[in-house]
Amino acid sequence: MKAVGFTTSLPIEAADSFIDFETSIPIPAEHDLLVKIKAVSVNPIDFKIRQNSAKDKVLDAPKIIGWDAVGVVEAVGNEVTLFKKGDEVYYAGDINKPGSNAAYQLIDERIAGNKPARLSDAEAAAMPLTTLTAWEVMFDRMHINESDKDKSILIIGGAGGVGSIAIQIAKKVAGLKVIATASRPETVEWCKQQGADIVVNHKDLVSEVQKAGFKYVDFILDFVNTNTYWDAMAELIKPQGHIASITGSAEPVALNKLKGKSVTFSWELMFTRSTFQTGDMTEQHNILNKAAALFDNGTLKTTLNKTLHGLNADNLKAAHRLQESGKAIGKTVIVF
Amino acid sequence: MKAVGFTTSLPIEAADSFIDFETSIPIPAEHDLLVKIKAVSVNPIDFKIRQNSAKDKVLDAPKIIGWDAVGVVEAVGNEVTLFKKGDEVYYAGDINKPGSNAAYQLIDERIAGNKPARLSDAEAAAMPLTTLTAWEVMFDRMHINESDKDKSILIIGGAGGVGSIAIQIAKKVAGLKVIATASRPETVEWCKQQGADIVVNHKDLVSEVQKAGFKYVDFILDFVNTNTYWDAMAELIKPQGHIASITGSAEPVALNKLKGKSVTFSWELMFTRSTFQTGDMTEQHNILNKAAALFDNGTLKTTLNKTLHGLNADNLKAAHRLQESGKAIGKTVIVF
Repeated sequence: MKAVGFTTSLPIEAADSFIDFETSIPIPAEHDLLVKIKAVSVNPIDFKIRQNSAKDKVLDAPKIIGWDAVGVVEAVGNEVTLFKKGDEVYYAGDINKPGSNAAYQLIDERIAGNKPARLSDAEAAAMPLTTLTAWEVMFDRMHINESDKDKSILIIGGAGGVGSIAIQIAKKVAGLKVIATASRPETVEWCKQQGADIVVNHKDLVSEVQKAGFKYVDFILDFVNTNTYWDAMAELIKPQGHIASITGSAEPVALNKLKGKSVTFSWELMFTRSTFQTGDMTEQHNILNKAAALFDNGTLKTTLNKTLHGLNADNLKAAHRLQESGKAIGKTVIVF
Repeated sequence: MKAVGFTTSLPIEAADSFIDFETSIPIPAEHDLLVKIKAVSVNPIDFKIRQNSAKDKVLDAPKIIGWDAVGVVEAVGNEVTLFKKGDEVYYAGDINKPGSNAAYQLIDERIAGNKPARLSDAEAAAMPLTTLTAWEVMFDRMHINESDKDKSILIIGGAGGVGSIAIQIAKKVAGLKVIATASRPETVEWCKQQGADIVVNHKDLVSEVQKAGFKYVDFILDFVNTNTYWDAMAELIKPQGHIASITGSAEPVALNKLKGKSVTFSWELMFTRSTFQTGDMTEQHNILNKAAALFDNGTLKTTLNKTLHGLNADNLKAAHRLQESGKAIGKTVIVF
């Protein structure tokens, strides 16, 4: 089958940062679905893995990355019960297994969902990883529920992939008052289109949020950098409030700053359930199906913003280049 | 009225580390209850405040500390609705106001509860601060609920005041499997009496817990030191698990270590609600009353372990000395 990968970590401008190659179609076992892929999308995790997973070494075989796909089930492992041949699926996948930048991929049925029927392949391929991330962080980590309706949430990094769908879910599913950060006219406009009530500049964040009328906010989601925004988050979070992040803290953190207000902090990593094969791993199947129903009834909208045609090294390079720039708005998809 | 306090932060051995003095009985306003105190208890917060709140200075008037009391309502402010003159109450109080080491004290009705009827004054005075702390951390911060029954909780520092009642609440109210840490024969025995299923040594904590049959635990409560146990907690916590602490992290913390497992961390400070006058401040009244019912029906037991008689500087010094030693088991109470 056709695939795109790399054997060493190179800057995206390098000729071989991605290479087109041929490999054999994998064979499904146990809970695996063999999926014929129709579209994929790119997330920040993609370029981080490309930049770091084969640093200063050359792999024996090209590594296939890519987490997000839409496709059709071609065959199933002998323990599969949730899907059958011919089903259209969408999923984000498992960081420990070959990715979706290939004609075919194996995916565990417990982390795949039924593709939203009313979305095109490109529209649907844009959504799994970011939707799972935003859903898990708000409902499984922060335990946001009906009693939180009309509370406030600050979303740092509103115009990116996760930020965009997080704004929608916070507003339209959780019923929160959404303050998002964005700094360019086009990202401010995008955040409003997703449903943000208020958009503030991330520079001088504390005074921006307070000028918007909030001394404190009930929830904060960091989609940019935990170290950068730590002090601002500690100041803005409401007593007994909840901060969560999907990014990282390369430097140690002054955790003590959250103590006086009895604040909670959560990490969310969409790959935790599949990596640790947690008992509730099938929850990702359930989330994707719940989200599909919300896409189909119009509550949620795709965050697709750019479509490339044809799976090949050149298109993957273009998609990574845009993602690495930090200027991407919404999602970039490659349709096969 | 008679009171005990200090005008400068001194080692407990110093003659004036506590002084007996006379001051006027305060007058209740708004939500205040004026309580005639019958018994108080000592917590680690007491000696931390004594050691630090008048460092290198001399206060104009002696500072009265002490958070935990049992007493009788003598008068009420004009907005009081929850209590009346003659009611017996127990409460932990507000860090920003004069404490309970005095014949009378003002307390906001919203953070006071009805004294458990079946407990003596000493037995009841031992409980408010630690019970509120343990209850808030498990139910308000960690959101432990019926669906968590039979999950595992590691309680670091099981034999102290909060540890003791936390073991009881975790076991008897939340229905969890409780692993507590203790290192001396008498503290091991005490933890078992409180209801711990397993007691492990805090030295070499990871291998101790794993030897006891737990690769991971669902919840961890740190009642000793967040910096000291950070790496061990990061290793032992289950993917998607929840760690909470009431102690502190003087040094910055490698928060990143919790990311791969999507772990949540909460601070619990019993004084947050009263300090910030949160909208749900009355929840402390509710918790104390729920706990009183559990003390009265025998589900929970007092953790009183030592009783001193007479409010005076000598007895407060003795109680602080024991608390500062780090060897206190359960609670020490002074009956007036």
